[in-house]
Amino acid sequence: MPKLHWEDFKPGDVAIYGPRRVTREEIVAYAAEFDPQPMHLDEAAAGTTLLGGLAASGWHTCCLMMRVLVDGLLSQAASEGAPGVDEVRWLKPLRPGTEIRVRTIALESRPSKSRPTRGFVKFRFEVIDEQDTVVMDLVCSQMLLRREPGAAA
Amino acid sequence: MPKLHWEDFKPGDVAIYGPRRVTREEIVAYAAEFDPQPMHLDEAAAGTTLLGGLAASGWHTCCLMMRVLVDGLLSQAASEGAPGVDEVRWLKPLRPGTEIRVRTIALESRPSKSRPTRGFVKFRFEVIDEQDTVVMDLVCSQMLLRREPGAAA
Repeated sequence: MPKLHWEDFKPGDVAIYGPRRVTREEIVAYAAEFDPQPMHLDEAAAGTTLLGGLAASGWHTCCLMMRVLVDGLLSQAASEGAPGVDEVRWLKPLRPGTEIRVRTIALESRPSKSRPTRGFVKFRFEVIDEQDTVVMDLVCSQMLLRREPGAAA
Repeated sequence: MPKLHWEDFKPGDVAIYGPRRVTREEIVAYAAEFDPQPMHLDEAAAGTTLLGGLAASGWHTCCLMMRVLVDGLLSQAASEGAPGVDEVRWLKPLRPGTEIRVRTIALESRPSKSRPTRGFVKFRFEVIDEQDTVVMDLVCSQMLLRREPGAAA
């Protein structure tokens, strides 16, 4: 299958990837390894926190988003990684049993100034639940190979 | 031990937490679960990428930072979580065997407008290696309980 390149993403493009069901077991296992705070480990303790009950670590939500994006998008694309992320917002607790999807919205596209073989696409990634409520969103500039390096953009 | 509260963090405060040694096994295990791209899974494939060799997923670096911060800081503090993150920057590949630390720099402090029992401290978190080079940094506003709710700030 031909890989997706920088030219294949245009501002305004929207796509959805997933779904993935998030289990209680993986929420607790992730928290035990990376974020062992009571609201991610134990229902009773979580009930007394701002989250109002057991919910995934915000970082776990980032990881789950990444897995959905690798499977659905990045593994099909000539991806060269990303220099970072802007504006991660944890908007709603991610509860055990939720089925998530990831919506991608291409915001901007520009060729790389320093590397004529590459370009950047700035995306908003939204993790959404079954009710289409945004659980988390973030903005990320993804680097991709160009199909026609150095062509006029 | 008395917990750290919002009042205990002042702009300009710097602290260091860790260390934690990052193994090849955990880099590959994390990638297999959350970010199965060649540069995080396989030395030979990674050598041909921009990273120039096997390196941790940027999201894995976030997770490792969080674990160091929970163990050293957040578990000792009256932490109420964070609404999100700004400006994650992946500055240098995180290689197998690296011993990381996390440097925290308190940038700003303000009481919560909506909740008199809480305040925010905006931190820069830096993941540094043995040479004190910053591998990753990010900015995060942490919510904390106030020792004296509603007192003049």
